[in-house]
Amino acid sequence: MESPMVIPINNIRREVRSLKINIQRVMEDIRTISSIRPEGSFGSTRFSYSEEDRHAREYVIREMTGAGANVWTDSVGNIHGRIVGTEKEKSRVLVGSHLDTVRNGGPLDGLLGVAAGLEILRVFQEEKIKPVRDLEIIAFSEEEGSNFGATMLGSKCLAGKAGLEELRRLKNDEGITAYEVMKKFGLNPDSIEEDLFKPEETYAMLELHIEQGQVLEDSGASLGIVEGIFGMTNIHITLKGIGNHAGATPMGLRRDPMAAAGRIIGKIPEWVNQIGSTQLVATVGKIQAYPNASNVIPEKVAFTVDIRDMEAGFIGKMESRIREELERLGKEGIQIQMETIATSPSVSLSREIGDILKEEATAMGISNRNMYSGAVHDCAMFTDMTKVGLLFVPSIGGRSHVPEEDTKEGDIGAGISVLLRAVCRVVME
Amino acid sequence: MESPMVIPINNIRREVRSLKINIQRVMEDIRTISSIRPEGSFGSTRFSYSEEDRHAREYVIREMTGAGANVWTDSVGNIHGRIVGTEKEKSRVLVGSHLDTVRNGGPLDGLLGVAAGLEILRVFQEEKIKPVRDLEIIAFSEEEGSNFGATMLGSKCLAGKAGLEELRRLKNDEGITAYEVMKKFGLNPDSIEEDLFKPEETYAMLELHIEQGQVLEDSGASLGIVEGIFGMTNIHITLKGIGNHAGATPMGLRRDPMAAAGRIIGKIPEWVNQIGSTQLVATVGKIQAYPNASNVIPEKVAFTVDIRDMEAGFIGKMESRIREELERLGKEGIQIQMETIATSPSVSLSREIGDILKEEATAMGISNRNMYSGAVHDCAMFTDMTKVGLLFVPSIGGRSHVPEEDTKEGDIGAGISVLLRAVCRVVME
Repeated sequence: MESPMVIPINNIRREVRSLKINIQRVMEDIRTISSIRPEGSFGSTRFSYSEEDRHAREYVIREMTGAGANVWTDSVGNIHGRIVGTEKEKSRVLVGSHLDTVRNGGPLDGLLGVAAGLEILRVFQEEKIKPVRDLEIIAFSEEEGSNFGATMLGSKCLAGKAGLEELRRLKNDEGITAYEVMKKFGLNPDSIEEDLFKPEETYAMLELHIEQGQVLEDSGASLGIVEGIFGMTNIHITLKGIGNHAGATPMGLRRDPMAAAGRIIGKIPEWVNQIGSTQLVATVGKIQAYPNASNVIPEKVAFTVDIRDMEAGFIGKMESRIREELERLGKEGIQIQMETIATSPSVSLSREIGDILKEEATAMGISNRNMYSGAVHDCAMFTDMTKVGLLFVPSIGGRSHVPEEDTKEGDIGAGISVLLRAVCRVVME
Repeated sequence: MESPMVIPINNIRREVRSLKINIQRVMEDIRTISSIRPEGSFGSTRFSYSEEDRHAREYVIREMTGAGANVWTDSVGNIHGRIVGTEKEKSRVLVGSHLDTVRNGGPLDGLLGVAAGLEILRVFQEEKIKPVRDLEIIAFSEEEGSNFGATMLGSKCLAGKAGLEELRRLKNDEGITAYEVMKKFGLNPDSIEEDLFKPEETYAMLELHIEQGQVLEDSGASLGIVEGIFGMTNIHITLKGIGNHAGATPMGLRRDPMAAAGRIIGKIPEWVNQIGSTQLVATVGKIQAYPNASNVIPEKVAFTVDIRDMEAGFIGKMESRIREELERLGKEGIQIQMETIATSPSVSLSREIGDILKEEATAMGISNRNMYSGAVHDCAMFTDMTKVGLLFVPSIGGRSHVPEEDTKEGDIGAGISVLLRAVCRVVME
């Protein structure tokens, strides 16, 4: 029997740079899991705690086990696959992403990071790499919020940022609580405390994810080293006027909340520009008019504004501009309501892990750039407890959450190769 | 047996001015019919060809018959109740409105005009008035378009502006054609040709309706003598951009159709003002974003613009302003589509009937004003074939198509009294 390869610390960089991934195997993982979907749906529809999820879990657990990992599923459904390191007193390295999707989503969102974890395990097995630290691959549950409308629930629970109270409060469309859904799926959310992430037990967390935007494609880079994740404020604006017949009400007698909404929505890009942050983004993604009929002046229009930036000050400035315009509308007889429905602070990721990712990408000759992420990912839940690194591969046309979501196979290979090499370096530290 | 009262032509004005309606009886009609609704609904829900419609029809037919009219239901369900005049060669006078409602609508829209017709029949019977011309009360079907999405279907079919082809094409939400629905209800739409309105057989058509706007209330008048009905153009605008994650896409890389839609919607009141017609109204009543999620830049936003004026030129100017702005958006990378989905020309009503209505209102000391209607009504289908008069009573708060829809009892009484007197004068001509 061969003895396992333990890479000497001083040779790590040279050794890891000889490692190779098997991209065909990765693409097969992605093809197999992404084609699990309920009858009659298209793209990938793989909600956590569904039958599709169960099939995907079987695949992931089989692959992890086959690659020699100790596998367990925690109280809220996150799958863990661990290879034990040579030095017991050293804290683990976590690598992973989420296994669930939105409805009719794409093949790579989340799954890419899970498949990368599986490939890393397989390379470790084949190359007989014995890490110094424990290497733990993780497939998070319920990142998309498809069931209960709350994103990153699996990682939040692990990080202690959500708990039993939240699981008992959150309900799916059928009115069943997250707690009950998890129980019914065979999980034991009551033991959530036992699974809590302990900072002292973890050295670093790395995630590979698709960008879901066009920054990389636009700049021609194959990899994005994420330095920070934007803070976000999601506000809900409701404008009430007087609903009436579109023909029977002269313009001067109107209190039209749709015209009022248009004044705000149309000016948002201009306001962003005036505020002058190069990162600030603001989006009206959701709008609803009541009663929403072509020949009726709406009585009410509700819409959301999603505002993001690395600096809270810029988000605040944007909120102020919106509030000023709302006050003006209020003076014109529109009833206004502005409510903050979600807010998250910006987070900075580990410069140390970022530098390792950059070094490995550069060593492979892969074009890369540092960037911020406007989207939040599972790894962001742990930035206050461990060193976190996040690596992006480009999304073709910036498209995500649609069946057409795609990334060039070369970029997928580049992302996993760099992740593998960075992970190898970190688990040997 | 008493001989019927035939009012001598030269005494008509004096005689008709002594006629009195019984407002309690009218309110009872309205209360009874407006409270017919399916279980679990509120307000009035009385779609044509439904069980609720059948109950309402029974009431109307019973009242018409009781008041001595010959009653029949035509091929598409309009109910006719006729008192035969003394001079057979003279053409009839039509009086009525529609019996159907929108979902969860109010008690007066349409029904007021039908109840007014019933009261006129009862007064004729009680006062033993023998008209010179035939007096025909009519309760139109399917004015609201609640079943098939096509408004004024009953009056349109009678006027020959819709026919078998349309009935076979229009479908309800269950995919059943208007033709089949009517057949199933016991009607015989195949004989539609026989029921066609013949201009030579009709002398005039009068309709009493609630204003559904706030012009009367705002000006303190109890009655509105409608001189014309606005022409209307309903356009459907679809803006396509690039759907994307709200956080992951910098402002400069966006093709955001929602921001584009806001620019148009917010400016519409300003454009109406610049065009300078005192009557011009433009309304965005309906909007839909795709996929309509707070954290996604929409890939597509569709909305309607309803434009109305007495003069087509002003409507055209408004369309041009919108088109100019759309072209600007097109240059900024938004795919634009502008489609006219409905259009109707403005119509002028009979000055002669209007003058009679005004004289009778003024003789009763009822405050009144001439006005235009921004909404189309059944009587507008006949303006090219007969003299049409339309009388409005105020809508409290301008509200309509809601359960709260209401008119002061005094105004209802004023409207029916003036209608009765005008009808008496016209049927004696």
